[in-house]
Amino acid sequence: MRYGGPTVSDLGEKRVIEAIVAESPSIVNGDDAAVLFNAPPNSRTVVTTDMAVEDRHFKLNWSTAEEIGKKAIVQNFADIEAMGARPVAALLAVAAPRATPVSFLQELARGIDSRVREFSAELVGGDVVSADQLTISVTAVGSLGGNLPALSLDRARPGQVLCASGAIGHSAAGMALLRRFGRVGVPEDMVVLRDAHTMPTVAPSRGMVARSTGATAATDNSDGLIVDVSTIARRSGVAIDLDPEAIAPSPALMRAGELTGIDPWAWVLGGGEDHTILATTSAAIPSGFRKIGEVHKGEGVTVGGSAPKVTTGWASF
Amino acid sequence: MRYGGPTVSDLGEKRVIEAIVAESPSIVNGDDAAVLFNAPPNSRTVVTTDMAVEDRHFKLNWSTAEEIGKKAIVQNFADIEAMGARPVAALLAVAAPRATPVSFLQELARGIDSRVREFSAELVGGDVVSADQLTISVTAVGSLGGNLPALSLDRARPGQVLCASGAIGHSAAGMALLRRFGRVGVPEDMVVLRDAHTMPTVAPSRGMVARSTGATAATDNSDGLIVDVSTIARRSGVAIDLDPEAIAPSPALMRAGELTGIDPWAWVLGGGEDHTILATTSAAIPSGFRKIGEVHKGEGVTVGGSAPKVTTGWASF
Repeated sequence: MRYGGPTVSDLGEKRVIEAIVAESPSIVNGDDAAVLFNAPPNSRTVVTTDMAVEDRHFKLNWSTAEEIGKKAIVQNFADIEAMGARPVAALLAVAAPRATPVSFLQELARGIDSRVREFSAELVGGDVVSADQLTISVTAVGSLGGNLPALSLDRARPGQVLCASGAIGHSAAGMALLRRFGRVGVPEDMVVLRDAHTMPTVAPSRGMVARSTGATAATDNSDGLIVDVSTIARRSGVAIDLDPEAIAPSPALMRAGELTGIDPWAWVLGGGEDHTILATTSAAIPSGFRKIGEVHKGEGVTVGGSAPKVTTGWASF
Repeated sequence: MRYGGPTVSDLGEKRVIEAIVAESPSIVNGDDAAVLFNAPPNSRTVVTTDMAVEDRHFKLNWSTAEEIGKKAIVQNFADIEAMGARPVAALLAVAAPRATPVSFLQELARGIDSRVREFSAELVGGDVVSADQLTISVTAVGSLGGNLPALSLDRARPGQVLCASGAIGHSAAGMALLRRFGRVGVPEDMVVLRDAHTMPTVAPSRGMVARSTGATAATDNSDGLIVDVSTIARRSGVAIDLDPEAIAPSPALMRAGELTGIDPWAWVLGGGEDHTILATTSAAIPSGFRKIGEVHKGEGVTVGGSAPKVTTGWASF
């Protein structure tokens, strides 16, 4: 690790927390709990949490602390967006070995700060504890305004189209490149894919736009396209057919496939961790989305009418 | 560990999550994020998070999984109560070694379930990941109704009294007994103290009652009485004098002191983890509280006008 200076053990809990808060300040932080601002009438609070463990979800020789912070926010905020809600706040709990440089946690907080501010959200609280293994737990809080139901896994209907906002398969391709070349060895024209893995993005408000323009079901591509679309199909009691041309590997994925000897379709269908918002709608394709499939009566997921070549995705055990 | 049956690795992520959810079901669980119920007009959302790591915050030969679950909720809900708010929901993120029995996580979830239901709250979501060390991260969500400001660390005023709801020093005494006798060896009349450590309680609504009857500042006794009261004094710019008779060790603490050879005042002043709600008020002592001190002009914390014998508490690094 390229991080230096005093360790968390050198500084002690209180000063470590102060150092983190300084990188991502919020007026509502600093008491026993954070009191968020008055909610608009009729709004509902939306919450989700995700945990990331060193060497399981991230590697310190692949990702910078800033990237790890950014990714932890995107993983959670994508889940808020997938409900059609607006992320408003995040909480950060970190378990860190005593030898962890404080500068590492400061850079982590800077990564978190830059991502939450893209959403006009704030890091409002957290916890820092001592542990053998670096573990980062983020909770996101969102606000769902108005009377429309939330986007949910079980509201896809036959006749709708499936649409996507964001790249598909790029994160998995980036991981394959990291595995093959290491962080600094990734060819310059492939850094965009490396970045898609170490610090994926989600465009703010896509979920809110989809919900307000008629979408009913949504999720984010976290476990793999086939797995995530299958979840919508199963929970909604419908069949979904993906359009092979619409999801065909991009030129960047084709090039990464040549460099690694891996079929890029494996990344598209099974990759996950792109945090692309996937939504179904009977209305016009929402702004920022593109059509990638159709919802039919029946069950299961097909690609161009045939069984997909990949049906598994990412799981923690 | 006395837990048997299949491990998390045997079952896989999806079925482990299903097993946990079955022990603490909620209608709002099961989508990308949990949508909470409509908030009352003028209410604000209150959030806090705490992380607990095996062998640092709990030991599996001292605590059952049920107790660990109960404590994780109390640690978080006490922070919500200390704002004068009502806990309404919890999220659970668990990092577990692959060999962890699923039955352990089920019992953990049962402990969580029993505590959240005491508050009419629910476990609404979470995450389960693989790690080397068992780590439990709970986030609590509360609702702060009405127009009164939240109870906060910086609103103690000279002339107020400091009052407490709950025991002080019992958790630290329980830990000393566990260290001396082990879980099963703790004398029967001391099990109440052991329980105060392994599964502390917080009486629902005390924070809400305090806020609605005129209290202004509050915290919970998590780091140690002197440390926590000092935080209120420093943040409010006041002095606080504790009444030595009001906080004098209970008969149970005196007995534990004899059994362990430890001065019980060390537990009272420095123990922490009782999660007793401490509040300051100019009005009548709120229901369920007792007076333990007075707020004066000046700075610092005294006991009967003198410097306390213990000034340190619990910290993670």
